[in-house]
Amino acid sequence: MSEPIGRVDGTRIWQNKFLDAQLDRVRYPDGTIGEQVLIHHPGAAAIVPFLNDPAGDDPQVLMIHQYRYATGGKLWEIPAGRLEPGEAPLVCAHRELLEETGCTAAAITPLTTMWTTPGFTDEKIHIFLATGLTRGESRPEADEFIEVVALPLAEVLRKVESGEISDAKTIIGILYAAGFRT
Amino acid sequence: MSEPIGRVDGTRIWQNKFLDAQLDRVRYPDGTIGEQVLIHHPGAAAIVPFLNDPAGDDPQVLMIHQYRYATGGKLWEIPAGRLEPGEAPLVCAHRELLEETGCTAAAITPLTTMWTTPGFTDEKIHIFLATGLTRGESRPEADEFIEVVALPLAEVLRKVESGEISDAKTIIGILYAAGFRT
Repeated sequence: MSEPIGRVDGTRIWQNKFLDAQLDRVRYPDGTIGEQVLIHHPGAAAIVPFLNDPAGDDPQVLMIHQYRYATGGKLWEIPAGRLEPGEAPLVCAHRELLEETGCTAAAITPLTTMWTTPGFTDEKIHIFLATGLTRGESRPEADEFIEVVALPLAEVLRKVESGEISDAKTIIGILYAAGFRT
Repeated sequence: MSEPIGRVDGTRIWQNKFLDAQLDRVRYPDGTIGEQVLIHHPGAAAIVPFLNDPAGDDPQVLMIHQYRYATGGKLWEIPAGRLEPGEAPLVCAHRELLEETGCTAAAITPLTTMWTTPGFTDEKIHIFLATGLTRGESRPEADEFIEVVALPLAEVLRKVESGEISDAKTIIGILYAAGFRT
């Protein structure tokens, strides 16, 4: 009887409020054992928020322009944030939309889910479409430096095509929301 | 005169052959100081390899079906790998295509670049289109368990739409290669 593939055992390298780094021994599909670093992440929700009808004339998207230390500058992103312990992705989507943009949504529906970079983290982002927005005041966290900007979807798509929008979840969310169909 | 934003100082948490985790003190745009964990990554190249004319009838893409410990199973991906020290992304693209699929390409051209998850890593993936392939034997690394599979682009797009393809670089590479245009 063959042993199951996956984690054999492991040790925690480091952990803080945001990150949990583990060094695991792993059984591979061929039965051999190797070592893998895993940045354990609780998962996240991201939202493509439309201020008007996404299928109507000149749909407008609420975007975030945010300083990101890792990139050395500002990125155009859709609102997003990590799941709280036990929190369902849909609940997280409503919460993050409110925190980052001040908006409540009449409807939030799933678009897709994606692994950000499965070579070293189990982070999975659940991406949603939000419609029927009511605007209010945003309440960013202390280490969030964000500007909330309404942009025409056509302009957002141009920024995706030109590479000015370069954040993975944002590219994917916008292309799905814009009606990617095979 | 205001101080520049970004890294003030930091310490290395942990490092191995693949990952370099740093805990940095950072000056934010409002002048306040905070702490950020940064998983430093050298960057990567990913390739969408076409076996025939991407604009012709029934284009075929060479895909990778790969065990990923972080996800607990196999993912459909495009060939990809990290940059060697000093290596240009285009050189890396040729090398990874050869290592993972055994193919050489007559032409490799850039599609876009993307940040995988800028909240905690500076990993940036350069995505390319490869055409004019000559097939040979793949030479995966010891911890890579990959199957190389040729699939019709139409089927790959269906897998993107259904969510069966859920790896960020793969979704983005396929949608750009399939001719996403605004």
